[in-house]
Amino acid sequence: MGKSYLDLINELDKFPYYENNPAFYTTHLKNFHAFKVNGCDVVLGYILNSVVAKFQWPAEHWAIDSTDQTVTLTTPADATPEQRSQAVAETLEKEAKRGTFEVLKGWRNENYAVYAPGGKFLLDMERSATPLFGVVSYGVHGTCYVEDENGLRFWVPRRSKTKQTYPGMLDNSVAGGMSAGEQPFECFVREASEEASLPEDVVKANTKTVGCITYFYVRDSRAGGETDLLQPEVEYIYDVKLSADTIPKPCDTEVEEFNLYTIEETKQALANGEFKPNCAVVFIDFFIRHGILTPENEPDYMELVTRMHRRFEFPTASFAN
Amino acid sequence: MGKSYLDLINELDKFPYYENNPAFYTTHLKNFHAFKVNGCDVVLGYILNSVVAKFQWPAEHWAIDSTDQTVTLTTPADATPEQRSQAVAETLEKEAKRGTFEVLKGWRNENYAVYAPGGKFLLDMERSATPLFGVVSYGVHGTCYVEDENGLRFWVPRRSKTKQTYPGMLDNSVAGGMSAGEQPFECFVREASEEASLPEDVVKANTKTVGCITYFYVRDSRAGGETDLLQPEVEYIYDVKLSADTIPKPCDTEVEEFNLYTIEETKQALANGEFKPNCAVVFIDFFIRHGILTPENEPDYMELVTRMHRRFEFPTASFAN
Repeated sequence: MGKSYLDLINELDKFPYYENNPAFYTTHLKNFHAFKVNGCDVVLGYILNSVVAKFQWPAEHWAIDSTDQTVTLTTPADATPEQRSQAVAETLEKEAKRGTFEVLKGWRNENYAVYAPGGKFLLDMERSATPLFGVVSYGVHGTCYVEDENGLRFWVPRRSKTKQTYPGMLDNSVAGGMSAGEQPFECFVREASEEASLPEDVVKANTKTVGCITYFYVRDSRAGGETDLLQPEVEYIYDVKLSADTIPKPCDTEVEEFNLYTIEETKQALANGEFKPNCAVVFIDFFIRHGILTPENEPDYMELVTRMHRRFEFPTASFAN
Repeated sequence: MGKSYLDLINELDKFPYYENNPAFYTTHLKNFHAFKVNGCDVVLGYILNSVVAKFQWPAEHWAIDSTDQTVTLTTPADATPEQRSQAVAETLEKEAKRGTFEVLKGWRNENYAVYAPGGKFLLDMERSATPLFGVVSYGVHGTCYVEDENGLRFWVPRRSKTKQTYPGMLDNSVAGGMSAGEQPFECFVREASEEASLPEDVVKANTKTVGCITYFYVRDSRAGGETDLLQPEVEYIYDVKLSADTIPKPCDTEVEEFNLYTIEETKQALANGEFKPNCAVVFIDFFIRHGILTPENEPDYMELVTRMHRRFEFPTASFAN
């Protein structure tokens, strides 16, 4: 008996919901400190209490309130994003040197952005540190497919066996994280070139922006580093319809090979748990938008649709301001 | 300055969110009694306290707990759906005769289904009464469109000026409520014939099931009857691509006329508030799935996507069991 689509969503959207059990939710939140920034009166992410305890929080930048369970970056309310980012970077570099956290051993030298209400850029931080703060991260995922007399087939890459995270698992045709300062489609064009060797003009001519999926991931061992860290995520979604003679090819060392999967082969690989968790859900979204999963053939239809479009309690990005 | 897409969602998905303001949410819930059914330990809907007070609840079928704020149908735990439905029907028919509630003056002689966890059919009740109990209701909405050398255009009907609800407003090409016992696509085919004169074979050949939208509506005066009644709703969504020579036509008296709207004309009518609120959101969903609204051109992109896929605290239907 393979995994159901609901099983696959449950593996990805793992943080509890208030409405399922208010008492459990409220108790569960006590495992975390709220990450806040002076001058911005909202919670930006949840930090595990065990992480708060291990961190050395330089007193010139941070205030820890163990009663309210908050960790506040105390840069002035009118600080610039650069000033806030600098304070965070100093703190993180020290922790990386101390070797406190496994996740920081995967230091990427790439910054992810954190946003204030209204989607305003607040600060950025080293990508590998974002799960320590439980802030929302952003990425792009695209499905390259061929639809002709042979039916609908998907270009499915297998991740390199030496990749730090989810080695050897199946992936979406194009997928990657959005660095601070990047726009979603710009990021998608870059990733399509880097990971699938697809030229910019081909991508621009054949890609449709079709939505986003959002989920509240809780990291397990397959993600690498500490477990139970929080990773609320937004993935902007793209459909890329290719002619049969346009063949994605590995370009960097992250992908091993691309294969063309029929719908049935894709369903089987999903049921086998062969896909990286968020890539599985990108397929569920594709299946729903393309009428492959319907209310009549999928018992958990509505739960799938709502769980993969979770509304966060944190502010999120806006790229149209 | 016209309405933004976020304004249009705000008009439809109006019930507060816990995560926006836990204290406000908790206080707000005190305005309602929870609707429950003996033998099924979940909340099925919220009934306004003022509605609870006006109802005559026959003691043989109902238990009102004013401390816990619950209204419980006390049919035996092993009652059949028919027995539960019969008890509800008796209660509602008496209220309709007494003329207690404005909404029951629009008695439809059509039953809507209420579901237990797992999507199991629990009972049905007269359609016009569902907002009194705040139970989830289900419908189908479809967008008929033409896409050719003249671009993308939508078939937009105008509701009859004599219609009970939202008279004279613009609508989706095909839209209607799902009666108890109906399957979504079956309902869609029926509505397409009844409301747009589209033959079954044309609908089946040209329609793609593309998802559902869900939102927690709070009724205002345009809905008719008492205001502030709750109406959490699920609308299964269909795209119907038609050739330019297939022309939807009014068939019953509910629709006045169909006109072909360009994307720009549709956007203008949305900004003018000319569309029935849930029909406006069906267009937002279409615009997002078809790349007309993108993260780069719509500042509230993520809020739109997540708000129109709200996860309810109530059990919902499953049609694939």
